[in-house]
Amino acid sequence: MTPIHEAMLRMGQRAKDASRVLALVSEKQKNAALLAISQTLQTHAQEILDANAIDISRGEQSGMSPALLDRLRLTPARIDSMASGVLDVIGLPDPVGRVLDRYEHPNGMQIEKVSVPLGVIAVIFEARPNVTSDAAALCLKSGNAVILRGGKEAIYSNSKICALMRQAVVSVGLPEDVVSLVADMSRESAQELMRLNGLIDVLIPRGGAGLIRACVQNATVPVIETGAGNCHIYIDQSADIEMAAQIVLNAKTSRPSVCNAAESLLLHEAIAETALPYIARLLEEKNVILHGDARSCALAPQILPATEEDWATEYLDYQMSVKIVSDLNEAIAHINRYSTMHSECIVTRDDAAARQFLDQIDSAAVYVNASTRFTDGGEFGFGAEIGISTQKLHARGPIGLPELNSYKYKIHGNGQVR
Amino acid sequence: MTPIHEAMLRMGQRAKDASRVLALVSEKQKNAALLAISQTLQTHAQEILDANAIDISRGEQSGMSPALLDRLRLTPARIDSMASGVLDVIGLPDPVGRVLDRYEHPNGMQIEKVSVPLGVIAVIFEARPNVTSDAAALCLKSGNAVILRGGKEAIYSNSKICALMRQAVVSVGLPEDVVSLVADMSRESAQELMRLNGLIDVLIPRGGAGLIRACVQNATVPVIETGAGNCHIYIDQSADIEMAAQIVLNAKTSRPSVCNAAESLLLHEAIAETALPYIARLLEEKNVILHGDARSCALAPQILPATEEDWATEYLDYQMSVKIVSDLNEAIAHINRYSTMHSECIVTRDDAAARQFLDQIDSAAVYVNASTRFTDGGEFGFGAEIGISTQKLHARGPIGLPELNSYKYKIHGNGQVR
Repeated sequence: MTPIHEAMLRMGQRAKDASRVLALVSEKQKNAALLAISQTLQTHAQEILDANAIDISRGEQSGMSPALLDRLRLTPARIDSMASGVLDVIGLPDPVGRVLDRYEHPNGMQIEKVSVPLGVIAVIFEARPNVTSDAAALCLKSGNAVILRGGKEAIYSNSKICALMRQAVVSVGLPEDVVSLVADMSRESAQELMRLNGLIDVLIPRGGAGLIRACVQNATVPVIETGAGNCHIYIDQSADIEMAAQIVLNAKTSRPSVCNAAESLLLHEAIAETALPYIARLLEEKNVILHGDARSCALAPQILPATEEDWATEYLDYQMSVKIVSDLNEAIAHINRYSTMHSECIVTRDDAAARQFLDQIDSAAVYVNASTRFTDGGEFGFGAEIGISTQKLHARGPIGLPELNSYKYKIHGNGQVR
Repeated sequence: MTPIHEAMLRMGQRAKDASRVLALVSEKQKNAALLAISQTLQTHAQEILDANAIDISRGEQSGMSPALLDRLRLTPARIDSMASGVLDVIGLPDPVGRVLDRYEHPNGMQIEKVSVPLGVIAVIFEARPNVTSDAAALCLKSGNAVILRGGKEAIYSNSKICALMRQAVVSVGLPEDVVSLVADMSRESAQELMRLNGLIDVLIPRGGAGLIRACVQNATVPVIETGAGNCHIYIDQSADIEMAAQIVLNAKTSRPSVCNAAESLLLHEAIAETALPYIARLLEEKNVILHGDARSCALAPQILPATEEDWATEYLDYQMSVKIVSDLNEAIAHINRYSTMHSECIVTRDDAAARQFLDQIDSAAVYVNASTRFTDGGEFGFGAEIGISTQKLHARGPIGLPELNSYKYKIHGNGQVR
């Protein structure tokens, strides 16, 4: 038993113990904790900025890219936004203790199915320090203790934010271990965290494809895969081409770095000749580089030849793959083969084609004539989300507060035996 | 790439392709497939018995225990019961295509949350060949393709049953690969099966603690842990002792080999002196061996001293651990420490104690004054179950047809962008 193994076991056990307290706490007390966290972040903003300055200076010294430095950097406005994000969670309904079902066994036993917290949620995430307070607030309101492990680039910022949150929850009478942070940034601590069976009820990775793959490959605790989005837009032969163009532009360029941005464009061969040159030009104006199959390249000179790898690539950038298909079936087969099962869209005026696409596309969110960018807890009316699940076990699509709960059966008898 | 790896990939891909067809099939056609399976099992009963005879003779030659041989053995009556089990599934409601939620985005988009099959379910199980048809029927009705992998002891029986089922589904126009069986019984094929990410949506192990541990440790596909049941009965100081005795007797001895049988008895110290000698005598009459802490041993001479290991042991046999606790809190702490989160019971006349136990015990099913033996899909009104989940992600407790579904969001827009 290595020291790190022992330390992680202890952290897991303390989180489990704290989760048993938190599971039974009233909504009022959880909201008081959220209020205290929000206020503490604001009143101690300077300390957070000072800690963040250390991360930034280390990042600059190690040659971090300007884009990553920007994600890492906190400002008074960003801290305000973290604090108000926590406040927003107060307004969301408490998911714990809902009676999901209630019935009587023929022998007279009363069976009740009631929502309960999952227990301890581990969240492994990358550079952005605001995830620390976001994830903690959602776990807390849903009655779950949380163990956070951010990236090493943000360790000073995350440690300070977590210490302040622990101070805040204690101030309202909750155990500090409802929120904890793995401060050891070794590979070993991450590995141990992923294998704390019996102490961690679910692990949610939030980050790039590499992080998610590492969790899926190495974790023995249950994992919810999130956030990989190789999203497709298929323009059917009956599409309104102007509508299609606007949806593609929005889904590709409104925020290319997020998981619900579109990465691949498919066009029915019957409209490709009209639609593709027009849409390719609009995308070019936005500096989008296109990688297409041979037929696409023949229709628009600015399209580069795609490789097999392009079809499976989530660019998260101003790039997009393009393919011309001979019919809807080919489009569906291509998407189901290469998609990450996040969000896909058909642009069409044909109801039968829309229905077939909705039924046969095997993704969390399937759109007819709307941008894939809407796959988001806020847009779906959940108020907030801790991530977007791309697997089918447990939650699928945006994970809001109800998805951070499980349930149990409470049975009342008077001596029944079987 | 080894030949087994290639073979498993091919099997996974064929199952995935078949699952896409099955997901969209009408309830009527699925029921026709179930009827065909049921009839085929009956009309080909002799072939199944012949195949089973090979397994039995190999088992005898290898020195298999009489208990295991009995689990392995098929008889005309057992085949009838398999066939009628499949027929029963016809009567269960189809879980696919239920509209779970429907609302309008402020921008006018219609958002619908609809139940869909999980896709491909892998079931790894041990000796009993009847699991082959049970699991296949439940997966089929819930719209999922299934890949079965039974124990090598039953390979001839399982291969025959699976071949007949494939023949039956083809006869009603479904692809044969909605049901398949891993015939290679090497360790490697099991390992490959557990790592078919992207092809298998969930793995459900059905068997002993060793099998479940192997799946949890080695699988990279999502797993639902099932069936480990270190179930406790706590007799509170206010308990009706006769009721407690009947519940303990039933939970321990009505069927000791199943996961909802009780394995551990806790008694409040205030009633132990009266209750324990009486209950120990009743259990002794049923040949139950008791392993107790020092205080229990002092109260009843037939109780053997327990070791630390006993508290965590699922005997699945005529054995039970016994412990005297000083109060309800100690009972709850003990249970939450050693239980497998399956089923626990308090016997009490005190409503406050009952409420505290129901709230604080972290198990799938928590009983007041009733036997733990009721944790079962049939008893809970699900009609059937594929197993009992002891984890919190996705399903908890008995897994019926609705739990074998996921959901997706279908969104209708008319050009909305974000």
